[in-house]
Amino acid sequence: MTNIDPWSSTEIQDNEHMFSEFGLEKIPDAVRKKLDHHLFRRGIVIAHRDFGKVLQRIETKKPFINITGIASSGKLHLGHKVDIDLFVFFKSLGAKNYFAVSDIDAYVSRPKIQNMNDATEIAQENIAHLLALGLEKKDLYVQSQKEPRYYEFAFEISKKITENTYRAIYGHTDLGKVSAVLLQIADILHPQLEEFEGTMPSITGIGLEQDPHAKITRDVCKRLPYKLETPSFIYFKHQSGLQEGKKMSSSDPDTAIFLDDSPEEIKRKVNKAFSGGKDTLEEHRKQGGNPDIDKTYEILKFHHPDDDLVKHTYQEYKKGKMLTGELKTLCREFLTETLAKHQEKVKKTMKIAEQMMK
Amino acid sequence: MTNIDPWSSTEIQDNEHMFSEFGLEKIPDAVRKKLDHHLFRRGIVIAHRDFGKVLQRIETKKPFINITGIASSGKLHLGHKVDIDLFVFFKSLGAKNYFAVSDIDAYVSRPKIQNMNDATEIAQENIAHLLALGLEKKDLYVQSQKEPRYYEFAFEISKKITENTYRAIYGHTDLGKVSAVLLQIADILHPQLEEFEGTMPSITGIGLEQDPHAKITRDVCKRLPYKLETPSFIYFKHQSGLQEGKKMSSSDPDTAIFLDDSPEEIKRKVNKAFSGGKDTLEEHRKQGGNPDIDKTYEILKFHHPDDDLVKHTYQEYKKGKMLTGELKTLCREFLTETLAKHQEKVKKTMKIAEQMMK
Repeated sequence: MTNIDPWSSTEIQDNEHMFSEFGLEKIPDAVRKKLDHHLFRRGIVIAHRDFGKVLQRIETKKPFINITGIASSGKLHLGHKVDIDLFVFFKSLGAKNYFAVSDIDAYVSRPKIQNMNDATEIAQENIAHLLALGLEKKDLYVQSQKEPRYYEFAFEISKKITENTYRAIYGHTDLGKVSAVLLQIADILHPQLEEFEGTMPSITGIGLEQDPHAKITRDVCKRLPYKLETPSFIYFKHQSGLQEGKKMSSSDPDTAIFLDDSPEEIKRKVNKAFSGGKDTLEEHRKQGGNPDIDKTYEILKFHHPDDDLVKHTYQEYKKGKMLTGELKTLCREFLTETLAKHQEKVKKTMKIAEQMMK
Repeated sequence: MTNIDPWSSTEIQDNEHMFSEFGLEKIPDAVRKKLDHHLFRRGIVIAHRDFGKVLQRIETKKPFINITGIASSGKLHLGHKVDIDLFVFFKSLGAKNYFAVSDIDAYVSRPKIQNMNDATEIAQENIAHLLALGLEKKDLYVQSQKEPRYYEFAFEISKKITENTYRAIYGHTDLGKVSAVLLQIADILHPQLEEFEGTMPSITGIGLEQDPHAKITRDVCKRLPYKLETPSFIYFKHQSGLQEGKKMSSSDPDTAIFLDDSPEEIKRKVNKAFSGGKDTLEEHRKQGGNPDIDKTYEILKFHHPDDDLVKHTYQEYKKGKMLTGELKTLCREFLTETLAKHQEKVKKTMKIAEQMMK
C-alpha cells in the first residue's frame, strides 16, 4: 500500500469545473504550506480570487482588511467554527479586523426569526462564542449597532446593481433577501471607506457555493463612486453534516455539533455519525475503512490542530488498523476536551457580550 | 353672473373616481373650515385616509406625530413649499415633528445625483430653506445622520413586503427605488417606535398620485411585529408647472419658481407663465378670463395668505374686470416681496444648516 496523503487534493479535482467555468484560482501548494494553518495545509481552503495582493501585504507586513460575518439563526456549530478559525488566523497575521455579527441580515433573510429582539439575542450568544474562540471585542461589530455611514453605504450600493443583474444571479428579488445582500456587500466593502481604514486589499473567507455573492461584490465595487480595492476572497470547503448527504445546520440539530453541546450530546452525536467503516470487524481489518466519507474523521480533519495525529488516523483507518469505535472514541475525547475548555471561556465572555448588546 | 366660489370643489369632482375606486375619503366641509389654513379652506387638501383620529387628537390637545419628507434632487420650489406649509401648520397645532431630509432616498432613486456628497450638499441647502419657512432644527432630520435604530427598522420592513405585492404596486423591483421605498416607509412609521415617541396617530401629507406609497405603508404597518397606529394621510393637489400640461419640476427650471429665484427670474417666469386670459383686450373684457387654468392665479391660490384677495382676484379675473397684465403684476409683486423676505432669512439659516451637515 502506497503512502496515503489525506491532504491530496481530491476536492480540487471534484470542483475542477468551478475553477475553469467561474474563474476561481487554486491555492498553489507553495502558498498552502507558507500559511501556517491547518485549514490551508489540509486543503480545506481550496480556491481564491485575487488572494495574491493580500499575500503580498502579509509578506511585506503591510495592513490589509480581514472581513467576514455570521448571520446565524441560532447557536454556532463546528461548521461556523471553520470560518471563525480562518478569521482568527488572519487576525494573527496582523490584519485590520471586521467581523460582522449580522443580526439584521439574519432577521430579514430567515423566516423563522420572528422579530429583531430574537435576532439580537442570538447575536449576543454568538458574540460570547466568538470572543471565546479568539476574537477581541474590537474585532467585531453588530450590524444593528453600526454607524450611520455604514447603512448609508448599504443603501448606496442598491443604486449600482441593476434589477436584471440581481435577478440573473439570485433568481428572485425577494425584498428581505435583497436587504441581506446589500448589507453583506456593505460589510465587505465599508472598511475601505475613508471613515474606516481607507483603501486597501481585503480578504474574506466564504464557502464555494457563495461565489455569486463574491462576484456581485467585486462587480459593485468597481461601479461605486469611491476608489476601492476589489476585494479578495478565499473559498473553503464546508464541513458536511453528521449524517450522509446532509449539511451541518442549526435548523437540524442532529446534523451538527454545537459549540455548547454537553459531553453527553457529543457522545450521542459522534456515535450516530455516518461512518466509513465496514460492516464487520473482519471486513474492516481486511479491506480497511474509508476516512474520506467518514464524518467522525472529517471532524478531526477540520478541527484537530495536530497534523501528524490527523494524518496518522487517516492512514490507520484506511488500512483497517484503526476500528470505527476507536476513531469515534478519539474524536469524542478530542471534542469533549476542546469544547469543555471553550465553554469555560464562554462563561466569562458572556458578560462582555451582554454589555455589548445593552 | 352668479357668485363664483373659487374653492368650490371642481377638483374633487375631477378626482371622484379616486375616492370610490381607491377608498380615499373627502375632507368634509366642516373640517376644511375648522382647520384654519388656506390649504384646507381652498380645497387644496382634498382627501384623506383615517384623518379622523388625528383630528380628535388635535381637538383634545393630545400628542400626534407630524411626519413628512423631501427627497430633493436640487433646489426647492413653490411646489415643495405646499408640503412644507402643511407641515408647519400641523407643527403649530402641537404635533411631534419629524421632517425627513431624504438625502439617501434622493441619491438612490435619482440617476442624476452622482454621489452622496452631492446629495448631502443638496440636503444642506434644502435645510436652510426649511428653517426659513418655519421649521426648527429639532423638527427635522437628515436620513444619512439617523440613529442605527432607524436603519435597522428600514431593513426590517423589507421582510414584510412580498416581492409580488411590491411588483403589483410599483411594476418593477429596481433595487435603488426599492431602497427609497423602504426608507420612506421607515420615515413614516419609525416615530411610533418606543425609542422615539411611542405608539400614536400620525399624519403625513402627500400628493394624490403617491397614494400607492400610503397604501403599502399602512399595509406593512399592520404586519410588523410592533403595536403601531395605522398612519393617517391627507392628500393635496400638486401645484402645476408654469407651462400648460407640465409639472413643477427641479429638472425643468422654467416650469417652477424656486425659493431662491431673483426678482428678474420671477418677472421673466411669471410673464411667460401660461395664462387664462383672452387673446384680445375686448374679448377679455367681454367674456372674462379663465382663472381655473391660469398658472399665475394658481400661484396666488396656493401661496397667498389673504383669502379675500385671492377670492376677489378670481372673481374679477373671471368677470374680465381684471386683465392678465394686472394679474401678473399682482402675482409678481407678491412673489418678489415674499421671496425677498424668505431669502433674507435663508442667509441666516444657511449657517445653521452648514453646522448640521458637518
